[in-house]
Amino acid sequence: MTDPAGEVAVVGLGPGSRAWTTPEAADAVAAADVLVGYGPYLDRVPANPRQERFPSDNRVEAERAAHALELARAGRRVAVVSSGDPGVFAMAAAVLEVADRPEFAGVPVRIVPGLTAAQAVAAKVGAPLGHDFCVLSLSDVLKPWDVVLDRLRHAAAADLVIALYNPRSKHRPHQLGEAQKVLLENRSPDTVVVVGRDVGGSAERLTVTTLGDLDADTVDMRCLVLIGSSRTRVSATGAVYTPRTYPADPS
Amino acid sequence: MTDPAGEVAVVGLGPGSRAWTTPEAADAVAAADVLVGYGPYLDRVPANPRQERFPSDNRVEAERAAHALELARAGRRVAVVSSGDPGVFAMAAAVLEVADRPEFAGVPVRIVPGLTAAQAVAAKVGAPLGHDFCVLSLSDVLKPWDVVLDRLRHAAAADLVIALYNPRSKHRPHQLGEAQKVLLENRSPDTVVVVGRDVGGSAERLTVTTLGDLDADTVDMRCLVLIGSSRTRVSATGAVYTPRTYPADPS
Repeated sequence: MTDPAGEVAVVGLGPGSRAWTTPEAADAVAAADVLVGYGPYLDRVPANPRQERFPSDNRVEAERAAHALELARAGRRVAVVSSGDPGVFAMAAAVLEVADRPEFAGVPVRIVPGLTAAQAVAAKVGAPLGHDFCVLSLSDVLKPWDVVLDRLRHAAAADLVIALYNPRSKHRPHQLGEAQKVLLENRSPDTVVVVGRDVGGSAERLTVTTLGDLDADTVDMRCLVLIGSSRTRVSATGAVYTPRTYPADPS
Repeated sequence: MTDPAGEVAVVGLGPGSRAWTTPEAADAVAAADVLVGYGPYLDRVPANPRQERFPSDNRVEAERAAHALELARAGRRVAVVSSGDPGVFAMAAAVLEVADRPEFAGVPVRIVPGLTAAQAVAAKVGAPLGHDFCVLSLSDVLKPWDVVLDRLRHAAAADLVIALYNPRSKHRPHQLGEAQKVLLENRSPDTVVVVGRDVGGSAERLTVTTLGDLDADTVDMRCLVLIGSSRTRVSATGAVYTPRTYPADPS
């Protein structure tokens, strides 16, 4: 039996800073009686003795989703807490996929969006996402590496700005370098690149470099990498932006 | 001479609902002594008799940017107010481009990000942006139509989810239909499509259809169109999501 009082809200706190958490997200977290999520994300939520907390590992998304749905089925108001936007490479799709199983029929799920890392990095350096762009995860944990490379080639050929999530991990140290090589087949080494690390957090660091000079070894999983289009430029004051206008002949 | 007290903050209120405006954006607007922006966006900001307001047309971005920078150079704290995220097809790139002129050297500009329409539409229907995606403007006001079609072809071939901004206007009534035709060269007519109109606002409407059935005539400039990947699906309860996993052979 499904208790009608229960629900799962998949909530995005936005990246790093509390000033980026929307009122909707703050309210959804405050109204929950159970919080589920990766430990460091739960640590960003102010303590509330009324709330039970289930911190978890950053992986095992399906198990975490099933646990949240079980609690909601039993009548609990559950918030699955994410950093960034849960709709972008995060828990929203995982929860909806598990919620689609017959045993969870009738358990309400709602998604509460948040700013995603690409927007935060972009705003901190200027407006690199001011023209057409794409958002790709460089991880091959959930898709074949060939698919990643194919998408990078299309994005480079289409001259899109590219935001790379999960750019590098200890288990996949060579992939960013390979991606860089593939992008250089279609893009100039002068292409503007921005690396944002822990943006909005206490260890925030922003680096503006080029596709030719990018040192993949300085990038880790807490980074987001933005690859400019052929039009992305650095202003006299150091702001990075992609003009809204794209000419018939960009070269 | 540049008065050091002045600045331009390019602020995103997020789409529609006030519950989506971040505290940073609300603070930036409250701290300004001049608000510049498209009239309907300024109407979303609570009245403050201390503030001067300069509502404008939705076009003339460069003039609006220059006006904001002139006011800031004279020592005013100016907020350029946008809906959505000013970093995504909006005023941030326009302001930075104009700020790069020698006459505005030394005028501080900062960008305050907001949720963008694609995130709002996605959250309302589920998690269609749960896997790799791209964000394209369908308008050819600022780029050649051939570039738009080329990008659509690459995005379709790469099997990205596609968020289409500015999908259709009175002046460009046929373009969405053309885009649909180009996408159908690479994508099944069963591809899930979501049309969100005025999401978060009083006239919110969400339609889930397919690429084959999409009726371009029902779409206008207040709409955002999401084209799923081959993996995007509709759950038993009507939620639209793109699974986080992409198989080696998606067909």
